[in-house]
Amino acid sequence: MTTPLRLGIAGLGTVGAGTVKIVRQKAHLLAVRAGRPVEISAVSARNRDKDRGVPLTSYAWEDDPVTLATRDDVDVFVELMGGSDGPAKAATEAALKAGKDVVTANKAMLAVHGQDLALLAEANGRVLRFEGAVAGGIPIVKALTESLAGNEVTRILGVMNGTCNYILTRMESAGLPYDTVFEEANQLGYLEADPELDVGGIDAGHKLAILAAIAFGTQVHFAGVELEGIGKIVIEDIRAAADMGYRIKLLGVAQMTGRGLEQRMSPCLVPATSPLGQLEGGTNMVVVEGDSVEQIVLRGPGAGEGPTASAVMGDVMDIARGLRVSTFGQPAATLTAAQAAQSATPASYYLRMNLKDRPGALAKVATVLGESGISINRMRQYGHANESAPVLIVTHKTQRSALNEALTAMGRTGVVLGDPVALRIENL
Amino acid sequence: MTTPLRLGIAGLGTVGAGTVKIVRQKAHLLAVRAGRPVEISAVSARNRDKDRGVPLTSYAWEDDPVTLATRDDVDVFVELMGGSDGPAKAATEAALKAGKDVVTANKAMLAVHGQDLALLAEANGRVLRFEGAVAGGIPIVKALTESLAGNEVTRILGVMNGTCNYILTRMESAGLPYDTVFEEANQLGYLEADPELDVGGIDAGHKLAILAAIAFGTQVHFAGVELEGIGKIVIEDIRAAADMGYRIKLLGVAQMTGRGLEQRMSPCLVPATSPLGQLEGGTNMVVVEGDSVEQIVLRGPGAGEGPTASAVMGDVMDIARGLRVSTFGQPAATLTAAQAAQSATPASYYLRMNLKDRPGALAKVATVLGESGISINRMRQYGHANESAPVLIVTHKTQRSALNEALTAMGRTGVVLGDPVALRIENL
Repeated sequence: MTTPLRLGIAGLGTVGAGTVKIVRQKAHLLAVRAGRPVEISAVSARNRDKDRGVPLTSYAWEDDPVTLATRDDVDVFVELMGGSDGPAKAATEAALKAGKDVVTANKAMLAVHGQDLALLAEANGRVLRFEGAVAGGIPIVKALTESLAGNEVTRILGVMNGTCNYILTRMESAGLPYDTVFEEANQLGYLEADPELDVGGIDAGHKLAILAAIAFGTQVHFAGVELEGIGKIVIEDIRAAADMGYRIKLLGVAQMTGRGLEQRMSPCLVPATSPLGQLEGGTNMVVVEGDSVEQIVLRGPGAGEGPTASAVMGDVMDIARGLRVSTFGQPAATLTAAQAAQSATPASYYLRMNLKDRPGALAKVATVLGESGISINRMRQYGHANESAPVLIVTHKTQRSALNEALTAMGRTGVVLGDPVALRIENL
Repeated sequence: MTTPLRLGIAGLGTVGAGTVKIVRQKAHLLAVRAGRPVEISAVSARNRDKDRGVPLTSYAWEDDPVTLATRDDVDVFVELMGGSDGPAKAATEAALKAGKDVVTANKAMLAVHGQDLALLAEANGRVLRFEGAVAGGIPIVKALTESLAGNEVTRILGVMNGTCNYILTRMESAGLPYDTVFEEANQLGYLEADPELDVGGIDAGHKLAILAAIAFGTQVHFAGVELEGIGKIVIEDIRAAADMGYRIKLLGVAQMTGRGLEQRMSPCLVPATSPLGQLEGGTNMVVVEGDSVEQIVLRGPGAGEGPTASAVMGDVMDIARGLRVSTFGQPAATLTAAQAAQSATPASYYLRMNLKDRPGALAKVATVLGESGISINRMRQYGHANESAPVLIVTHKTQRSALNEALTAMGRTGVVLGDPVALRIENL
């Protein structure tokens, strides 16, 4: 056996503790596979006294992650603290400048500072790896960066926030309203401290932006992600979608178009029989379409101690084996500035609205759509409840801008109660 | 840009031509990603004059793949001829001995000679890569070798022969008998020249043996794969399985047990709602279960020009980037000799038999099962057709040996017409 690879781990939450466990419990297996031992030199966390279910006394302790990151006996700084800025970023930068490789599971930091960190890593001849930052245990970063390197990627789709998928599928299976299931998820500890990171699509948007950078050779551009959360989805939408052969998912879509890079994270209808449509509970799924590979689908746990630690260890093992690749799959200086597409690729849309119980109301809505150049594929009007009639419409393919125009015009007809719901239908 | 990586490609069938196309059409993209140009120096095939839909005149031509493999202007020998022995093996050995890296999509060669070739590669300090050999465009070899290197793999399951999955799902959807769909597949060109490689499970068995070696750190042991083809599956089995919530798949399963390495490639019932159960047509799927990652599922096209060439190029790009890993994920000398498990892990079984229309026939069958210690979970008797009554039984978990004993004893009761069908139920 040759020189050990020595880790410094900052952040001992679920993923950090899981990583320590793997290094301790599988030392022999890791050494055989890497051709050298993998060891932990030092750890760091906010609270030294907390019981994390794994012995830590044999490792040096640092209160300051920056100090940890620059220790002489650390070859790889493993950043598992989280947060786009603050200590995570400071320690990552310090580690790279001190000539350490970095492994992180920090999607927010990568999505916001990915380009700068990639440049810094390369300037110092170090690697910055982040398999654990996207879709937990699913090896999508490596698949995209390495396995599919011979492809021009045409589209990426993904359900990358398990909490949202749990909420949406639980609403459907239990017939419960959003608020009830949201509270349930909260009780189960599925939600981030700021739940908007989950249900607002921000967390999943971070992941999408990271994947888009690799797929399209662009500088990661989170600000260019069109974000829409799941908070407005009601059980009626889920049921209506199911009736028409669809399921509603918080779906990320990234594609390079003639109009620029399109990045969307929003509730969409997908065919119920597609792999994405069949995805239940907290599981994640990423679909990659490439000009050569056609379509591959990766599915697995999107979070949790074991799965995310597995991803972190995949990166560590690559470094131990001497497998070194550019942060986003090509030198950071060659990544082009992403131009966000100003309009989304045309699609069919699902519309739900309540019409006043008044003669000619439906005709007015149909006329407005027609005037905006939007043709109707399917329409259903349900029995009247109180003074209003729920109406569902599936349009043929249209520009979102034309649809927005039509929705505004509908408001002026005086026959639509409240705001219509408009959800994109994403074909697979 | 630094020194180009120069390929010598032997075999210009579908995959070979597809690989040439990628190198030609995406030269710029490959160079940016690899940090160096990827070029073709020379090619070889049996027939020089055949039109392969891609210009070859700018490459040197070699009639003899061994000569190609050892040319001075070749850095990587790309073996796409196929066949476990003969020219493929001779040229691969010659290439490794001449200090060339090798990329192959040859599952038969790897399954039979994998260990010797891995030793030869290492003795010469070269890599031998084979993503294209298993499940076409699905990056399962890399996922298992690298991404999951922090896991102890507990089980691998897979549908890895698209032709068999096409036949089984087509039988179900069209309600056609095996022979008709087999002929259909033949007309469509889906079958190997020797169809037994497909429908007998041999091709898929090769792939399973390769994955098992990586997953369990054992020397690839194709002879240890318990093989059973799909030729005996009748439409009644498919329908009966569907009635009970299952679908029949040619399923590969590999797991390390206290009794040794279990490798099976056989028709099994899987839950209809599981990812494997939902797999339609020629698509492949591999499920990996690991102690940390829990379960990940990879799905994609299992064959074809683009997908397999994508996998081949993934390996080429790794070599271009200097990513070098042991053939089966650890030094070949550390792979242990696989001890084949003499008995399969206990499972529930699906049984279908025809009973003579005679009082007490069912009781006799039930008694025989009871005497072999096999308890019945579900039983269905259908209306009598002619002189016999079809009976379906789902057992509780049992040893296959106990079941075989019971099947033999049933034959002696005189109430069972023909051979009972027994299919394993694999839980997911």
